[in-house]
Amino acid sequence: MTIEQHLTPKGFDFAVAAAGFRAADRNDIGLVLSATPAVAAGVFTQNLFPAAPVVVCRERLAASPTVRGVLINSGQANACTGEEGMTHCHEALALAAAAVKADVDALLPASTGVIGPQLKMDLWEQAVPQLAETLGKSSPEDFTRAIMTTDAFPKIASRTINLGGFLGFGKSEVRILGMAKGAGMICPNMATMLCVVVCDAVVAPSDWQKILTAGVNETFNRVTVDGDTSTNDTLIALANGASGYKPEGESLVALQKALTEVLGDLAYMLVQDGEGSTKVARIEVTGAATAADAEQVARTVGHSQLVKTALYGRDGNWGRIVAAAGRAGVSFDPLALRVTLCEVEVFRDGQPTAADFDARLAEPLQRRDIPIQISLGSGPGAYTLLASDLGHEYVDCNASYRS
Amino acid sequence: MTIEQHLTPKGFDFAVAAAGFRAADRNDIGLVLSATPAVAAGVFTQNLFPAAPVVVCRERLAASPTVRGVLINSGQANACTGEEGMTHCHEALALAAAAVKADVDALLPASTGVIGPQLKMDLWEQAVPQLAETLGKSSPEDFTRAIMTTDAFPKIASRTINLGGFLGFGKSEVRILGMAKGAGMICPNMATMLCVVVCDAVVAPSDWQKILTAGVNETFNRVTVDGDTSTNDTLIALANGASGYKPEGESLVALQKALTEVLGDLAYMLVQDGEGSTKVARIEVTGAATAADAEQVARTVGHSQLVKTALYGRDGNWGRIVAAAGRAGVSFDPLALRVTLCEVEVFRDGQPTAADFDARLAEPLQRRDIPIQISLGSGPGAYTLLASDLGHEYVDCNASYRS
Repeated sequence: MTIEQHLTPKGFDFAVAAAGFRAADRNDIGLVLSATPAVAAGVFTQNLFPAAPVVVCRERLAASPTVRGVLINSGQANACTGEEGMTHCHEALALAAAAVKADVDALLPASTGVIGPQLKMDLWEQAVPQLAETLGKSSPEDFTRAIMTTDAFPKIASRTINLGGFLGFGKSEVRILGMAKGAGMICPNMATMLCVVVCDAVVAPSDWQKILTAGVNETFNRVTVDGDTSTNDTLIALANGASGYKPEGESLVALQKALTEVLGDLAYMLVQDGEGSTKVARIEVTGAATAADAEQVARTVGHSQLVKTALYGRDGNWGRIVAAAGRAGVSFDPLALRVTLCEVEVFRDGQPTAADFDARLAEPLQRRDIPIQISLGSGPGAYTLLASDLGHEYVDCNASYRS
Repeated sequence: MTIEQHLTPKGFDFAVAAAGFRAADRNDIGLVLSATPAVAAGVFTQNLFPAAPVVVCRERLAASPTVRGVLINSGQANACTGEEGMTHCHEALALAAAAVKADVDALLPASTGVIGPQLKMDLWEQAVPQLAETLGKSSPEDFTRAIMTTDAFPKIASRTINLGGFLGFGKSEVRILGMAKGAGMICPNMATMLCVVVCDAVVAPSDWQKILTAGVNETFNRVTVDGDTSTNDTLIALANGASGYKPEGESLVALQKALTEVLGDLAYMLVQDGEGSTKVARIEVTGAATAADAEQVARTVGHSQLVKTALYGRDGNWGRIVAAAGRAGVSFDPLALRVTLCEVEVFRDGQPTAADFDARLAEPLQRRDIPIQISLGSGPGAYTLLASDLGHEYVDCNASYRS
């Protein structure tokens, strides 16, 4: 899907600025601003060390169901920075709000970058006037590029839905646009990396949070790159009502479906662009005693360094999948386990189904998408996880991220 | 410690053979044989898919407290091989026992290699006569080299203890010799990779198993290379009584201490020689509510791909340690967390203790041993884990292990 195909929801403007947090002449601040107060919902990291912007988001969402926009910077995570980090976060928000003539507490913050260092407030002061200059002249793609760190491409997804109106009568058209960044420290837990969703539907705050949380549980919470849940995971969804249409009943279900699809597109892209990722493994566990057991097996396989390096090496080393399932800490009958790799059943009744699958697996293992089905044969529990592989590019990226 | 310094316990002989399981002209079968029946204790993988030799070991140890020896092959794991794998395991044991004139059920088996393929019984038949030819002419080092897979060096440790006798009166001297292999799929869980310990003390079976299990819990169960618990983890300890000395009371405590030291030496070597390992991180967690909480934090940090790649890159990116602790699923007060990296306190009171540690950390991060202290400030629970780093050599090794 090219950028041109995305329709921007009504009433949202974008702005970017280059502060030089990490590199010169690269946009590293992005702003989404709604013309009117927008209903805001958020999902955040469950890490015990939430970054300062995560703390501020939670405070502001608790204080008011609406905001005007979201201010994001890349290159500095403002995490593990104590009281000074909180002060800096508020200062950066106040500078940006003043520049675009919004109320001082109208923006939600998010940051991404290296954990530990304090925000460079001198650079913030110099850069913020650019936000006013570029407001309304920047695109969603500009915004998404500004919040990238090690991402290889900007992650944007959208849906336009016609909710019960007559075609051509615009009031029933609702647009949803999501913008996300990856690409490392990805193992969202009731949260995601940075992601902003904008929508022009009219929707009640409680409904908006409810469908967002449900959508995240089906999408972002089911992907992993490296098993490392970030301190900064933030997903903020804004609905400003600019379409004039208020979905209810069936239409609200349609809105939820469209929102979940947007989140699903972005979650897939996170794995696709996981640092050094060359594969997207779709690990589908069924037949567990409970959904939690199925999730535990899926995550153990998806986080296994040996499974991930085998995928990277295009090696159909299915024994590593069986071994990972067997150490997941979940109870099931080993003789009931079935494993299918790239549509080829490789393990059943406690042993391989054939002497050598390598010829049949050689071609499908070259593809990006690797389906892995694991049936435990012990109950109704099911879970599906998208996982990246592990290769040299991941090591390169993370052994020298700060240098 | 060079090989020459190791004293072999009395009454044990070694044999090796080259079957060609993985490479021509390389020993890949090793045998330890006691001249008399030896008290045997074992600790095995907790994986739900134990390899055939693990199943056979458990059966034989349940049937008899003594055995004559241990037969190990590298190059074929005989795991996930079903009933056929069990039959092959028994056949290989019978062939070897006949060759060295031992009872048919006198040997314990262990295997290591790729999961899935069936044992090559034709190669076993051809190779087993070599065991008789080399018996007594092979050294512990020959044995240890024969069971290596991706190991870079043989792992041998020993202690000689004088238990209460007068110096020079040999009856009170007891020797312990341990031989282990690594180097991947290392995350022992109440078990280890392949390891054989021989000892010439006189010791009761229940005492021997008890001090072995205690020693393993303090050593092998506290190391990780890649978090992947193998299907084949096997530790067998034989005590044949050939020293004529029977430790009791204080002497038994001394024997336990010496055994634990031997296991500790070998466990350290496993991490040191973890596939592609360049670092041994000693992750010491204190101040947790319980020991289990401390272990959970230590394992989350020790398995974090981001922490491991930073160690590989000699990057003092302590924020990744804090983030990993914060996502460990353990409850503690974030403001009470203190993190010390290479003797430098880097994080306290929710923020870095200084603006930039890189200069102070640059030199110590070049060393092999990296001490990491994590104090949660929430209770008496403590746990220490040895973990390797994650670099290009690990990817190389595991992306192409089978090819």
